[in-house]
Order: sequence, then structure tokens, then C-alpha cells
Amino acid sequence: MRTIDVCVSPELMHLYTVSDRTVVVVDILRATSCMTTAFAHGIASITPFAKMEDCLAMKDKGYFTAGERDGKKVDGFDFGNSPFEYMDEKLKGQKIAFTTTNGTQAIAKSAGAREIIIGSFLNLTAVTNYLANGTDNILVVCAGWKGKVNLEDTLFAGAVVELLKDQVQPECDAPVAARQLYNQAKHDLVDYLKDSSHVRRLAKLNIFKDIQYCLTLDQYGVVPVLKEGKLVSYQP
Amino acid sequence: MRTIDVCVSPELMHLYTVSDRTVVVVDILRATSCMTTAFAHGIASITPFAKMEDCLAMKDKGYFTAGERDGKKVDGFDFGNSPFEYMDEKLKGQKIAFTTTNGTQAIAKSAGAREIIIGSFLNLTAVTNYLANGTDNILVVCAGWKGKVNLEDTLFAGAVVELLKDQVQPECDAPVAARQLYNQAKHDLVDYLKDSSHVRRLAKLNIFKDIQYCLTLDQYGVVPVLKEGKLVSYQP
Repeated sequence: MRTIDVCVSPELMHLYTVSDRTVVVVDILRATSCMTTAFAHGIASITPFAKMEDCLAMKDKGYFTAGERDGKKVDGFDFGNSPFEYMDEKLKGQKIAFTTTNGTQAIAKSAGAREIIIGSFLNLTAVTNYLANGTDNILVVCAGWKGKVNLEDTLFAGAVVELLKDQVQPECDAPVAARQLYNQAKHDLVDYLKDSSHVRRLAKLNIFKDIQYCLTLDQYGVVPVLKEGKLVSYQP
Repeated sequence: MRTIDVCVSPELMHLYTVSDRTVVVVDILRATSCMTTAFAHGIASITPFAKMEDCLAMKDKGYFTAGERDGKKVDGFDFGNSPFEYMDEKLKGQKIAFTTTNGTQAIAKSAGAREIIIGSFLNLTAVTNYLANGTDNILVVCAGWKGKVNLEDTLFAGAVVELLKDQVQPECDAPVAARQLYNQAKHDLVDYLKDSSHVRRLAKLNIFKDIQYCLTLDQYGVVPVLKEGKLVSYQP
């Protein structure tokens, strides 16, 4: 039987071999929710950058620049880290260079994986269908918050474990724990997360609408896949 | 209000400042359960060693040597890693040099903390009473399994968060998640853990009796405290 594991922090990535795995990177609040939304609205590609300077430099090459540091939009960037910004008509067919505090770092640390895809609650079923049709073992990489565990990414990992439970078995305790948490939380994710540190952090920034949106299941059928350093929408 | 955080793996210790904290090290299966049992049966001190060779060398200095690698007793050591071995009369008043796969590594990584104590389900209430009477912020360090998260240590951390909830507030998401898991599991820890990877690993070694014992609450009132590199029993 295929296996699934969950890396609860990018700082633990050295413990996992990824060369033969499909890696799902998740940063619910808000990087991978933004990416999912952008692809659902017709963006051509998103190039993730771990470093802000590298991202900004892409402006001269015809890219829109986007992202945040510590939850706030970066000066000089075209777009921030709210999924609602990525519903913009003018982004259709365009390229974005993207950097965030945690999400793009998690993608960078997953380098070397056989395949990297992007997950969020917004495309949960599309992601699990994609994984169910694959043959690799799976690793869900939670972006966390500056290396520490966060609840919303762990819950997403648990949702993937739960939805694939008949086809894929947990490799270790992290997927078991994540699944237990998701099953406890799934009836009301927003309520369950109200005490999480990131939700409290974002609430201070007045973006409750973003939080609610990022915790909504299955709005889109897109699966962003990393191809030659760029995220593109998976085409069957 | 004082705060509590949970480090789910020793590999994340670089993210935490411990110089002003009381650190509780936990390795339920089975290092800290053994240590608790040994102090409850009159051992004078336990000196933890991260390296096996350093531990073995203490034999010439009048110490008993004890511990395991990968769940198995080490050749040439006097004692292994089953709590039942530490109920031995001949250990009364003696000194032990101790090394294990995960537990003693977690103690080593906690170096520099204002105070380090040892927790297990066997002395849960004694530990939380000790913490309740303190003034420091708290960090529970889970030994995990070779750097990965494990369920039993996370559950213990959650138990500490739960029992101190009126006095100490979570600093981050890890204590929130651990507490949720503990509240889900507390009515039958043995049953809840039957799918955990470590329990399956130990079950292969035929030590179900050990597992059951290590998941028993409040057998002892001792609190092992690290003083000048040695664990001794806390004396009020």
C-alpha cells in the first residue's frame, strides 16, 4: 500500500527523502490559498521565490510581483497575500513572481521531490483526486509559521490523510495526529481555529474575510504543479 | 499570564529560547517513564548521556549503566529501557549513567534552560503541581522518534497544557493542538495509541506490558530535576 507522511515544519525537511515522492505544499493562511485562487482565475504561471530581492527583480522581466512578509504586503510589489486580489481580470494569462514568509520557503525546501503540487482547502478534493490517481508515496509539507507548527496547515494535512485513508497508509505518527485533529475540526474549521496563533495574528490585520475564505472547501478544481521552477495549472 | 509552548521535536529546539524557562523533557516510551520509576524506587541520581561511549565509560566510576538504542538494551549495559527493571532493590541509593535513542538527546538539546525537569504520565500531577508553583514560562520538549513527531509525547504535552489551562496560556499552535489531542485521547490512552508508530514498533519487541504501564497516570509523586548535569529527585 502507498504511504503518506506529514512534515509539520519545513525545518524538519532534512528528515524526509523526497526524491521518490509527490510533495503537497500547504500554507493555508495565505500563500497556497492565493496560488489556488490565481490559477482558478486564469493566471498562466507563478514562480515562487524564497528571497524577496530575487522576486522583486522579476519585475523587469515582465512579471507581476506579489507576496508578503509577516502578513503584510511588501513595498513595491504589485499584489499582496489576500486571495481576493487574485480574482483580478488583468492577471489572466500573466506571470507572477511570488514570495511569502513561509509558503515559498516550504516550496524551496521541497526541492528534489519527484513532483511538487500546491494544496489548500479551496482545492482539497481536486488535490486528493490527483493524489489518488498517482502512484508515488506522498508527503504533505506544512509551511507553518517561521519554523513552528501551525494548526491550519496541520488540519489540511489531516484532511488529505482522511480523504485518502482507503488507499494510502500513514507512515508515522504525524499523519495520524493530523487526521485526528481534522476529524475533530471539520464540522466548523473557522470556529476550531479561532484560538490559533496565526488567526489571532491575522485578525489584528483586519482580514477575517480572508481567513473565512481560506477555510472554505472545494471552491476550485485546479491543481497547481511545479514544472521547471514554475507553478502551472495541471492539465490532464 | 505565564505561557506554555510545546516543541514537538528536538530538531526544532533552535527556534526556542530556553534561558528563562522551565523545560519539561518527555519521552514516554520509555526513557522518562524509566527515570520516574527509578527515582520512585530510591535511586540517588541519573546522569544522562547523549553518546553511548560516554555512558559506558561511567562503569569504571561506580555507576550502573543503562539505556537503549532503537528500543533494544545495549550490550554491556547493566539495565535496559523497561520501567520494570528500575523497581530493583539493588538500585536504591545508587547512581545510573543513562542513554537512549531519543530521550537523553532531548535533554542534551535543552541545555541552557533555567531549569530542566523530567515528565511522564507516571508523575503527571506531580509535574504539573511543580510547574503551577513556579514562576517561569514553560516549554515541554517532546523527544519524538529520531526527530519526527510522536503521538505519546505530544499527548503528554497536551495533558500538561490541559491541567495548567487556568494558570498558563498557550504561546503558539503546538500547545493548542496537543491539548486537543489529549482531550480526545484521555479516556483511553492505550486504545488511542494503538495505531501510533512507536507502539507498533514496541509491540514487535513484545513489551505491551511496558506500554500499558507507561500510559498509567500518577503512580508516583517524584519530580526528577537536573542539577549540575545530574538528575536528582526534587526535594521541597
